[in-house]
Amino acid sequence: MKVAYLGPQGSFSEEAAFRYFEDHENEWYKCDSIVDVLEAVEEGIADKGIVPIENSIEGTINITADGLLRHDLFVEAEIIFPVSLHLLALKGALLEEIREVWSIVPALAQCRDFIREAKVKSKHYDSTSAAAQAVNNQERKDVAAIASKYAAEVFDLEIIKSGIQDNSNNHTRFVVISKENAEIHPKNSKTMLLISPTSDYSGVLSSILNVFTALSINLTWIESRPTKKQLGTYHFFVEAQNGLHEEKMNKAITILEAFGHDVRVLGSYRTTKL
Amino acid sequence: MKVAYLGPQGSFSEEAAFRYFEDHENEWYKCDSIVDVLEAVEEGIADKGIVPIENSIEGTINITADGLLRHDLFVEAEIIFPVSLHLLALKGALLEEIREVWSIVPALAQCRDFIREAKVKSKHYDSTSAAAQAVNNQERKDVAAIASKYAAEVFDLEIIKSGIQDNSNNHTRFVVISKENAEIHPKNSKTMLLISPTSDYSGVLSSILNVFTALSINLTWIESRPTKKQLGTYHFFVEAQNGLHEEKMNKAITILEAFGHDVRVLGSYRTTKL
Repeated sequence: MKVAYLGPQGSFSEEAAFRYFEDHENEWYKCDSIVDVLEAVEEGIADKGIVPIENSIEGTINITADGLLRHDLFVEAEIIFPVSLHLLALKGALLEEIREVWSIVPALAQCRDFIREAKVKSKHYDSTSAAAQAVNNQERKDVAAIASKYAAEVFDLEIIKSGIQDNSNNHTRFVVISKENAEIHPKNSKTMLLISPTSDYSGVLSSILNVFTALSINLTWIESRPTKKQLGTYHFFVEAQNGLHEEKMNKAITILEAFGHDVRVLGSYRTTKL
Repeated sequence: MKVAYLGPQGSFSEEAAFRYFEDHENEWYKCDSIVDVLEAVEEGIADKGIVPIENSIEGTINITADGLLRHDLFVEAEIIFPVSLHLLALKGALLEEIREVWSIVPALAQCRDFIREAKVKSKHYDSTSAAAQAVNNQERKDVAAIASKYAAEVFDLEIIKSGIQDNSNNHTRFVVISKENAEIHPKNSKTMLLISPTSDYSGVLSSILNVFTALSINLTWIESRPTKKQLGTYHFFVEAQNGLHEEKMNKAITILEAFGHDVRVLGSYRTTKL
């Protein structure tokens, strides 16, 4: 099986992919962007893809949500991955001499307090691991990457300060995507739907959510993404704590469609905590 | 009056600020980040601030939403600003020779289709205008900035392709923020609330939205932001199409508080279309 993920070597996505698929004999397909992962799976270059969809600090990863909107793909598993961000520098570098930190935008955002207090400049890279690699590729001891322990090992850097994110309870939710809809299984505990309302009449979200409430379906995630057609019009992602084998989940879909909303079932799946 | 906005010179925020406050004699206070704008207002360095809160393509600007969560500030006006993104290069540059585009992450995201089709690399800058300035400061004719017409004028660049965003209906919503709560005025047509649920019981968002539906209050914006304490727990921003002078708006607040939710009134205000 060929698995696509967001590289480069040492990324959180790589670590999540390697740990989640550890029992399988896999070929790996490293991509430069989340969009490339989705396209690799859609075009059949890879069998599965693994992409981040939500982080407990930053919220929904919009590129992934918009990608699911645009591509014809299914979600077949959810992975909860604990994230710890560290300051990585060349061996011998000193914390108090760091003047610049390099990382991807969400990781910099997750370390806002540290960056402001340390009064360091920040520079954007495409991934935490690209930043770690860049630190490794130069000789300045006043720069550091914000990345994982795994990236420190891969790029032979020293952790000069650990756990620098604003909040210690930091998790990233990944989804495993596939071109085929996974089988409906009684162990599947969640279902993700993409609901495009029939019109943007007043109270449409409230009317949609009431369907789930009426059927005692607990929602674990609700996200609105702009239709990109007009300001104030949205598609809604909804994740329910019930599998598609449950009658009430199917009732909810039937009712929502009867209201005239377009409902796309993105998948029914299990959660794995790494 | 001193107005803080996200610079540098030539930014969309600058254009929005100059056009919105054109009738006043103002002092301007350029900031390096959205967080700096919010802090300048909170600390009294500036009287007002202007920050982007939502874009019709990218959705909510999370840094602004999280900033309103963290700072004790009020919203006193909303500004709808039409955004058109162009490709700006040195005079004499040719479109087919462009190999790299520079801009801020959301603008690059808004031009995803163009970037993929043109097979150009992208490089992140802190703002569209910083990218335009960087293009102006060097001599390569194979790089271009993605920025506004206004930035092209400010930095003496040529528009080599106009309107390159994925969707032509692109607007950014700005809010004017202040340390003081603006007066309740019958002309105010919107109210923004920040609701922190008493607990994360099943269906809490649906129960909150039902209060507005029951009172025939139309919501124009709903955004959940992570509490940053635990994955799956959120604060809700809600914008209603009714001013605080309206009895039903006050009823809604009373009812939500009676449910035990924490309700912060961020402001009641008018909308200006630029």
